[in-house]
Amino acid sequence: MKKYNLNELIERASADDVAAASRLITIAESTEDNEKIIAKISPELGNAYVIGITGAPGVGKSTLTERLVRELRKKKKKIGIIAIDPTSPFSGGALLGDRIRLQKLATDPGVFIRSMASRGHLGGISSATSDAIKILDFFGCDFIFIETVGVGQSEVEIVKNVDTTLLILIPGMGDEIQAIKAGVMEIADIFVVNKSDKDGVERTILEIEMLQNLSETDVHKAPIKKVSAKNNDGIMELISAIDEHQKYLLKSDLFHKNRKKRLEIELKQIAHNKLLEKTHHFVQENYQIKKIIDQVYQNKTDVYSVVNELLKKVLK
Amino acid sequence: MKKYNLNELIERASADDVAAASRLITIAESTEDNEKIIAKISPELGNAYVIGITGAPGVGKSTLTERLVRELRKKKKKIGIIAIDPTSPFSGGALLGDRIRLQKLATDPGVFIRSMASRGHLGGISSATSDAIKILDFFGCDFIFIETVGVGQSEVEIVKNVDTTLLILIPGMGDEIQAIKAGVMEIADIFVVNKSDKDGVERTILEIEMLQNLSETDVHKAPIKKVSAKNNDGIMELISAIDEHQKYLLKSDLFHKNRKKRLEIELKQIAHNKLLEKTHHFVQENYQIKKIIDQVYQNKTDVYSVVNELLKKVLK
Repeated sequence: MKKYNLNELIERASADDVAAASRLITIAESTEDNEKIIAKISPELGNAYVIGITGAPGVGKSTLTERLVRELRKKKKKIGIIAIDPTSPFSGGALLGDRIRLQKLATDPGVFIRSMASRGHLGGISSATSDAIKILDFFGCDFIFIETVGVGQSEVEIVKNVDTTLLILIPGMGDEIQAIKAGVMEIADIFVVNKSDKDGVERTILEIEMLQNLSETDVHKAPIKKVSAKNNDGIMELISAIDEHQKYLLKSDLFHKNRKKRLEIELKQIAHNKLLEKTHHFVQENYQIKKIIDQVYQNKTDVYSVVNELLKKVLK
Repeated sequence: MKKYNLNELIERASADDVAAASRLITIAESTEDNEKIIAKISPELGNAYVIGITGAPGVGKSTLTERLVRELRKKKKKIGIIAIDPTSPFSGGALLGDRIRLQKLATDPGVFIRSMASRGHLGGISSATSDAIKILDFFGCDFIFIETVGVGQSEVEIVKNVDTTLLILIPGMGDEIQAIKAGVMEIADIFVVNKSDKDGVERTILEIEMLQNLSETDVHKAPIKKVSAKNNDGIMELISAIDEHQKYLLKSDLFHKNRKKRLEIELKQIAHNKLLEKTHHFVQENYQIKKIIDQVYQNKTDVYSVVNELLKKVLK
């Protein structure tokens, strides 16, 4: 990696220099200087509103994001978009999918677009996303969109970073809805049924309502919004729904509570990662792991005794 | 929990006392005496062969397990079965499904059956399963079956404990196969296409083969076996396939390598859990977490600085 001067980059990013902001995200992603960056910018964080866009492949997340962003740009809002690309366990590479739609926005200097592969981050994608959000927040974005593909555990982790989560569905996904119900429905602050020009919209809405009724956590029943991203239908209403959710969060004090809760999770996650790394290093360097494993395998000792011995040496 | 004498229970379990073995598993599951139990029985571990049975709900895992067990019982093999029941995130309770089929085996004194809920274990289900396997191994089981429902991440974790994994599929699961391909296909040592009397068996086999061809890890291409658990068809052939897999493992030295690798993973997992717990305690007791979060939230400090400070106090 080319040499860089963090202070200079940070100063430039704060003066609206896109290249500097982009560079900072790259540095945060790929070096351990992320800690320095976050420490330096921390006095000026917390102004951006963060929106998560999630849903299975093909539901039109990118098109919808583009529509929402165009609408917000009319109000001169500065926008950041972080698109998380899943990495295939087979190919190892990122599935850089239909990001072309988002690229239409790339010529707009008020829109910052960044795509991140979901693998290959030291502290996990959740932590890398968290750093990137902070950098874009510092860069002065009013809204930051986090687009994730799929509805697995790592998406759930990622959306823990956001204020409002949109879960995008399309008609004819009955099975899909069944599959995602466990643990994922709860993350939706707003359900968005896209492709509202297709048959089966009302049925999809009914299925969502049924699942909502099954759920035991119904503090705030997430509204269901019909849109057609392609035809630009329902976008204004969706923006109003996001706005209302934000107002609801602020009024109920959940806005700050949620953000603090997320900070606590982030803090524990960082501690967790650092401890893991520390143990890993310790095991590899000071201990002869192969020898220990052999001893356990030969029934001369057992896993718990070994670990307890080890931790005595690492912990105060 | 009632008082118990570990040494006495261990002695009784080694003398083929089912109730004692069962009690030991319960103690290991629900107290921190699991470490003492494992330490005490560790000199006599490693004799049982562990078989994982996994697949989506409804593919007939329990019926198949019952058939396999009956066949092995003809050879007087002592059998342990651990059925992992998923816990619904909605209800919080275990979905104690069609375990009735397994209960048919319960009258056989040579078969030990235990069902475990996948939530509510201190160190995670993977670690609880690992303890239970060791206890059944000590109890003298020749074969231990681990039956998991579903094909998510936690199932992948659980089958890391086994020697041979059977992934059960049924005809007409095209979408299911698509859904599970990422990361789960690799865990199969043997693919079992159950309900071979139904239409579409050959198509299912073709789909599996296609996925196998896509995979880049093809060291040992997992064989595909057709069975009908209901009609007791193909069970002997499946047992032969398991036997062949075991022979392959032993011949290629993968048997010991895999077990050692699993020990290493287990060791790190335990260290990890203990460190997490330690940090958690430390944060809750010595530190005023709410105050720290407030400070971060007010931009007076940042997450990384806070964690680094904290770890300085915990680690040597």
